Amino acid sequence: MAKSHYQTDAVIIGAGPVGLFAIFECGMMGIKCHVIDALDMIGGQCAALYPEKPIYDIPAHPQLTGMELIANLTEQAAPFNPTYHLDQKVESLTRLEETQRWLVETEKGVTIDAKAIIIAAGVGAFGPNRPPLKDIESYEGKSVFYYIRQREFFKGKRVAIAGGGDSAVDWALSLAELTERIYFIHRRDKFRAAQESVNKLHALVDQGKVELVIPYQLEGLEGRDGQLSAVVLKDLEGRAKTLQTDILLPFFGLAMNLGPITEWGLNLDKKHITVDPSTAATSAQGIYSIGDVATYKGKLKLILTGFAEAAQAAHSIRELMFPGEAFHFEYSTTQGLPGLSPKK
Amino acid sequence: MAKSHYQTDAVIIGAGPVGLFAIFECGMMGIKCHVIDALDMIGGQCAALYPEKPIYDIPAHPQLTGMELIANLTEQAAPFNPTYHLDQKVESLTRLEETQRWLVETEKGVTIDAKAIIIAAGVGAFGPNRPPLKDIESYEGKSVFYYIRQREFFKGKRVAIAGGGDSAVDWALSLAELTERIYFIHRRDKFRAAQESVNKLHALVDQGKVELVIPYQLEGLEGRDGQLSAVVLKDLEGRAKTLQTDILLPFFGLAMNLGPITEWGLNLDKKHITVDPSTAATSAQGIYSIGDVATYKGKLKLILTGFAEAAQAAHSIRELMFPGEAFHFEYSTTQGLPGLSPKK
Repeated sequence: MAKSHYQTDAVIIGAGPVGLFAIFECGMMGIKCHVIDALDMIGGQCAALYPEKPIYDIPAHPQLTGMELIANLTEQAAPFNPTYHLDQKVESLTRLEETQRWLVETEKGVTIDAKAIIIAAGVGAFGPNRPPLKDIESYEGKSVFYYIRQREFFKGKRVAIAGGGDSAVDWALSLAELTERIYFIHRRDKFRAAQESVNKLHALVDQGKVELVIPYQLEGLEGRDGQLSAVVLKDLEGRAKTLQTDILLPFFGLAMNLGPITEWGLNLDKKHITVDPSTAATSAQGIYSIGDVATYKGKLKLILTGFAEAAQAAHSIRELMFPGEAFHFEYSTTQGLPGLSPKK
Repeated sequence: MAKSHYQTDAVIIGAGPVGLFAIFECGMMGIKCHVIDALDMIGGQCAALYPEKPIYDIPAHPQLTGMELIANLTEQAAPFNPTYHLDQKVESLTRLEETQRWLVETEKGVTIDAKAIIIAAGVGAFGPNRPPLKDIESYEGKSVFYYIRQREFFKGKRVAIAGGGDSAVDWALSLAELTERIYFIHRRDKFRAAQESVNKLHALVDQGKVELVIPYQLEGLEGRDGQLSAVVLKDLEGRAKTLQTDILLPFFGLAMNLGPITEWGLNLDKKHITVDPSTAATSAQGIYSIGDVATYKGKLKLILTGFAEAAQAAHSIRELMFPGEAFHFEYSTTQGLPGLSPKK
């Protein structure tokens, strides 16, 4: 990929819901943004891990899915023309002393020169917890998947789901109507999932659509050229069992990795970035942090809290970019949006 | 009205958007709420002052009206069965030392015994700025209105609108298609309203649907039995003019009145209640404050900021009600809603 260099007002690291809302809040303050994410899509965990799962605690949305949340936030940010750099982690962050700006470089060689940085990295550049099975890499993306992008792909297939949490249970429910058969592999008969979902799972078992394979753990994979033919299981006494299947979906949660963020010299508290909640500022001038990765006294890890922090960071950056300039604070109702209704 | 006495977990003072979201957040923590508001409807300023005006900065709502915002928040709060006490101001707040609870009394004699109080009073029990015209009280609610509840009422009438801000301009635009004629009375030819709306107003003037009566100020009212027949105006040199009209809509903003809140011994800062942002707690034990009425270092007066404060207050009240009890913090996606999907 050709190297590209950009100059902008603010770089947002993380395109999850809070990062997306920061584009809007910055836009309202006249701050242009570039956004970087390690995933190859917008939306962070909401999009990657629970796109079809209902969320109940987004204010003024009695219920919406992770996918809908991301779609709405993307639409809300769109009038401010953000530039997205996806599928690449930030590799370095360098202070440009002369200009009092920052240079961000991604692993794909994109460089961005910006006045401010907003770290909205959530749990970090996250990845699935990979079960320790020999050669699993060779099946990944072909017959072993950690995220589900297109349900249709699983139509008519035999699918083994491993795990006992919400992701495992919910995807079993969601895929059962499409697949030939679902094997639900878990090491015990208790689930860490919403009771209502567990009840539905048991109903599908009764209907013969889902087979519980309990108590078993994954032990090995069989197949060739990336195509699985069976998974080998072991029970708690070490007895083996082989299960013919086309697909394995291991749902064992996320490995969180703040990556190079820990090396940027910011004040950290148990892998979180400490900020001043009145400004969202970190210990480094021009670097702000919002959302789940940011911490301060009384911090609640809620998406809606991250939204308020995004507003806080945008106001701080405005002050940094236009110091001393009086800001005539207007509500969005009187101000309208740039391009939609010009300012007085 | 018969006096009523209630016992509950928390009383929320103010049924604006932030107060409504506090019902939901408290509900998620197992805290039952009663809500008191001075207005005779739910929704505070959003409902009373700009029900049909688009708002752009509610996260994940690229655009919605004040009315839609309130409808959504009311629906989101509904599963937790809040009790609303509308059309009444809080008259007193008394500490019950023995039980470490609070007794709230409204001007209608309703008393509520609660463990915690959340003051989400916005700008206070607000009312319209009433122009100082002789006998205006006798016309109010009959031919002089400060809020518009039903546009249909104005059909075919001659309507005089006074003021130069968003409310005046927007209601002129909204009513022009219904009324026989709109007189737009303003003391100067500049408006404090969104430029796009002002442009639309001028277009209506060109079409003969709105007549600008500028520069004039209200001087007196003519009519009988509450029915206006004319308004008397004066220009800046004191020259009088009489305008035949059926209706007068004065839009001169709000008078804000914190009322008895200033007498409750809470720490105040320029008519705002100072809180600890990490808990939303005021200086009085068991009293919390959120939304525009609450202040702390770096406070942004945004609805979305108030939403985050509501979550903060709910978590604090949970700690107050169930001290030391470990709280297994779960996201709404895994927890579901009480009644919809029971907790594990």
